[in-house]
Amino acid sequence: MTAVLQATDVPLRLSVDADRLWADLLATARFGAHGETGMHRLALGSADEEVRRWFEAECRALGCTVEVDRIGNMFATLPGSEPGLAAIAVGSHLDTQPAGGRFDGILGILAGVEILRVLKASGRALRHPFTVVNWTNEEGSRFSPAMMGSGVFCGVHDIETIYARVDKDGVTVREALEAIGYRGECAPGHLPMAAYLELHIEQGPVLEADGSAVGIVTGVQGLRWLDIRMSGTEAHAGAFPMGLREDALVFAAKAVLAVEKVALKHPPGVATVGYIHAVPNSRNVVPGEVRLEIDMRHPEESGLAAMETDLTNEIERLAPGAQLSVVWRKAPVVFDAALREVIRQEAEGLCLSALEMVSGAGHDAAHVAAKAPTAMIFIPSREGLSHNEREYSSPQQCANGADLLLRSVLRADELFHG
Amino acid sequence: MTAVLQATDVPLRLSVDADRLWADLLATARFGAHGETGMHRLALGSADEEVRRWFEAECRALGCTVEVDRIGNMFATLPGSEPGLAAIAVGSHLDTQPAGGRFDGILGILAGVEILRVLKASGRALRHPFTVVNWTNEEGSRFSPAMMGSGVFCGVHDIETIYARVDKDGVTVREALEAIGYRGECAPGHLPMAAYLELHIEQGPVLEADGSAVGIVTGVQGLRWLDIRMSGTEAHAGAFPMGLREDALVFAAKAVLAVEKVALKHPPGVATVGYIHAVPNSRNVVPGEVRLEIDMRHPEESGLAAMETDLTNEIERLAPGAQLSVVWRKAPVVFDAALREVIRQEAEGLCLSALEMVSGAGHDAAHVAAKAPTAMIFIPSREGLSHNEREYSSPQQCANGADLLLRSVLRADELFHG
Repeated sequence: MTAVLQATDVPLRLSVDADRLWADLLATARFGAHGETGMHRLALGSADEEVRRWFEAECRALGCTVEVDRIGNMFATLPGSEPGLAAIAVGSHLDTQPAGGRFDGILGILAGVEILRVLKASGRALRHPFTVVNWTNEEGSRFSPAMMGSGVFCGVHDIETIYARVDKDGVTVREALEAIGYRGECAPGHLPMAAYLELHIEQGPVLEADGSAVGIVTGVQGLRWLDIRMSGTEAHAGAFPMGLREDALVFAAKAVLAVEKVALKHPPGVATVGYIHAVPNSRNVVPGEVRLEIDMRHPEESGLAAMETDLTNEIERLAPGAQLSVVWRKAPVVFDAALREVIRQEAEGLCLSALEMVSGAGHDAAHVAAKAPTAMIFIPSREGLSHNEREYSSPQQCANGADLLLRSVLRADELFHG
Repeated sequence: MTAVLQATDVPLRLSVDADRLWADLLATARFGAHGETGMHRLALGSADEEVRRWFEAECRALGCTVEVDRIGNMFATLPGSEPGLAAIAVGSHLDTQPAGGRFDGILGILAGVEILRVLKASGRALRHPFTVVNWTNEEGSRFSPAMMGSGVFCGVHDIETIYARVDKDGVTVREALEAIGYRGECAPGHLPMAAYLELHIEQGPVLEADGSAVGIVTGVQGLRWLDIRMSGTEAHAGAFPMGLREDALVFAAKAVLAVEKVALKHPPGVATVGYIHAVPNSRNVVPGEVRLEIDMRHPEESGLAAMETDLTNEIERLAPGAQLSVVWRKAPVVFDAALREVIRQEAEGLCLSALEMVSGAGHDAAHVAAKAPTAMIFIPSREGLSHNEREYSSPQQCANGADLLLRSVLRADELFHG
């Protein structure tokens, strides 16, 4: 049946060139190559400048105008055939973690470039302007916060506050933008968008475990960051009998297990103790204090709130003196239902098995969702690895995602207005 | 009845001067004073040199000869009345932790000096020579290992190996000894001892909790140091569902609780996870590896071995991939029964409530026990605090210990031969 569908559909269908897309992924990995297959392309550094120059030149050669806004976001736009329409945009980010991979973020933009190539080769113009966006500093590795460019674009952050953020050498965002020549003129949020689509690797193991070709992302989980400080009594590990101890690490161990228990009680919530620090952290001293940093996520605000309440109660029960504070709350994001339905239908049309899933990681799309109809497409990550030199998705998997992105753009161009 | 005993005994009894002992404790605390009530008198540093000079001058003024051996141990000796007898020795150490207190070690030596004063004032000579020993570098804070001087004296360590040990600035033990003028001539182990007694603060909360005036130390616990490395899979804290995780910190939390459980199963054993390190130790990354450092102690070798076996089995059950290694084994030490009985009887004579107890901490006496009949006396530490500026024992508690030491020396002088 697949063969019959292809036989009838192929002549009508634009599709990406898998080899060309793969070649772009490999070729642009030279900007900030790190180790065998890794990347070190920190936001607004020299490797970021190089890949930005490459992106700008490629897009201009394909007939785009390229605009840069004040936070360095780049917008490569092919004009549409109908005047006055907002853009159909795709995008992601070209910066990486200090020891990141070749796909996280990068795929979303190179798939956009590949779509520009397909459109140019076909001679077909969309009704809407078509824009490929490179968001500045998604990773947040050099400058905090992460998702900086999309956050400024969407009015979440004030530009002057962001300009003043410094890296570990004391360089400000403003200085770094100027140093690489990408502090642009456009006001943040200048580009109206009729729809925004982001293709990204999953960065988790769900699609691989499920055997699905693509993920249709329903939204981004909400998040709570909590800090816990457990106090005990620092004591000599030999001279203090067990019965007289108040061992802060024993309290903390129970807290770590409580965090896991709370997540398991509220599926599909996740909760992690990623950071632990014991004081004085010396083998023969009973720890007098332990600090834990917790990351909790859930696709629904009610689920997050229940997790927070349950954890607070558990910690109070385990260690009455523990200090628990919430240091960051982020509400869940739900992506546009119509755009998700477009992706679902197009995946079906391409015979790509698709799984509806929530994104555990944050993405620029989570900011953009507040400004325009937004959705995301995931492809599998081998072993779920990301922020890692060994991050890998195959040429076919990348092409599957790019094809689905292309088809969704074409369909959104038909369906969406404004 | 107590009043009757005192009324008849007092005239016959030598006793220490509590005020004089307290004054010495306060006065010598000027050598390396740190903060309000703390000490920073690292082995073989300038403050250690100052207090050594003071100790040497005081003892010489009280009629002692002062010998120094090749590792800097100091032996202040009052001759005995019978020729050919080995010394009755008391001692401890004058060095402190980097942020230590005014009693740990110091009390044992100043009580020895006070006994010299009492003997001199009484005009009474012991049958045996009476020696006050200052052991070099008990703490091990500047140079490892701890209990260095007594270890060399007792043949546990080779002197050339120890000479080559360096501090964090690359200074060797030999250089440090020479710099302060305390690399002596005597061969290690030169002084024969008929008995060795050490007065020390407890460094734990047992005596205070029990309400006892003194502790009669039955021995020093044996020790096992174990390292555990738990491996999991480093993963994105948002994108990895709970069911697909291998969280090394969750494994480690279970291991921390298993360590506690094993100790509780083998009283009076104690076990501590004092050190924990998670990799990468970042809030939003599921830990891929956690390292634990464990300290286990028990007064009996069989108890220690059972704890080790039980913990190994527990860890194997909790995390089959965990790597467990024993990095240090030290056998328990049992102090001399006759000398302990002397202390018991003398405590009774002084109406000091006494508790038989094992020492959780290591002491120079644990080395000396292999060479000569040895025992220890503990006095209470307020809140069990030690290696801490707030370390405190009252003037009366210090005098109680010194009086019991004096009486035990006098009695050992009668009972012991050789």
